[in-house]
Amino acid sequence: MKLNDLTEIEVQRKVNEYFRLADITLKDEEIREIQVNDFGLGRLDDLGLQLFMYINTERYCAKEWVLFPRQTCPEHLHPPVESGDPGKQETFRCKFGTVYLYVEGEATSNPKAHPPERDRDQFTAAHEVILTAGDQYTIPPNTKHWFQAGEEGAVTAEYSSTSTDEHDIFTHKDI
Amino acid sequence: MKLNDLTEIEVQRKVNEYFRLADITLKDEEIREIQVNDFGLGRLDDLGLQLFMYINTERYCAKEWVLFPRQTCPEHLHPPVESGDPGKQETFRCKFGTVYLYVEGEATSNPKAHPPERDRDQFTAAHEVILTAGDQYTIPPNTKHWFQAGEEGAVTAEYSSTSTDEHDIFTHKDI
Ligand SMILES: [Zn+2]
Ligand SMILES: [Zn+2]
Repeated sequence: MKLNDLTEIEVQRKVNEYFRLADITLKDEEIREIQVNDFGLGRLDDLGLQLFMYINTERYCAKEWVLFPRQTCPEHLHPPVESGDPGKQETFRCKFGTVYLYVEGEATSNPKAHPPERDRDQFTAAHEVILTAGDQYTIPPNTKHWFQAGEEGAVTAEYSSTSTDEHDIFTHKDI
Repeated sequence: MKLNDLTEIEVQRKVNEYFRLADITLKDEEIREIQVNDFGLGRLDDLGLQLFMYINTERYCAKEWVLFPRQTCPEHLHPPVESGDPGKQETFRCKFGTVYLYVEGEATSNPKAHPPERDRDQFTAAHEVILTAGDQYTIPPNTKHWFQAGEEGAVTAEYSSTSTDEHDIFTHKDI
């Protein structure tokens, strides 16, 4: 499979197949609103994240995201934005498949996932958290994290404070 | 079925059966954390709400709730709490079954649901919104609302700002 060779609607439909595996129902018009993020790298098979946003207000945000098999969401953090806002906090609740999540903290020896070979230098967080259906983890604000799906792909709900993507800081030099 | 005659764990297990219908996975210890609310009325078959809270921080909250067939969540509103906090805002996303939701606004003629006969005077919001799997609705802060499940019961995700139940205002004279 080369995701990069697909049109946007083809990728969106593929994402919806994963949502169906987790019994998540989207309307036809919502499927067209699925966000396909390649972070400007044009290497969606390696680095990307697909998501459907249910709601994003000034107070709270809820979405579900899909990673294709072994696809990686690049390392980033959510910094404080304004006085009083400590930065976005995220709670992941896995619905389907396996997520290998890496956050700042003590490095895990023999991690189950690795960044793509050519991008190794662009990843630093090495404390491993493994999530399968029913597992949950909250990432504090201002904390580096990245994540990769296992062989089956992954579907995860993300509950958080407001999403302001423009404030996210990615550690990858090309993003 | 008389829910009132069941023990808490029996009700929690029954709630979990509905969660399973929506492919929502809870761990055994989480099933014991399911909240069964009868609002102090001791009439769970008529008036109640069951929920599992994923996360509730000072910023955001996410839960999934279950209504048993034709069970009603009594009318209430979420008022402003402190200066700057306009009150809890809630986004419902139905996962299974049918929710008959009533909010302030123009009264709907021939509504599909009615409060229990003896409680009719305790309900005022009459603008009907019907939610089935994949339907979503956001209730503004400080707005009266109540809801009832259809014959199959209902499972709904609720994404919101912080939940502070102690601030909720119920219109029912006995709550
Ligand atoms: Zn993040
Ligand atoms: Zn409410």
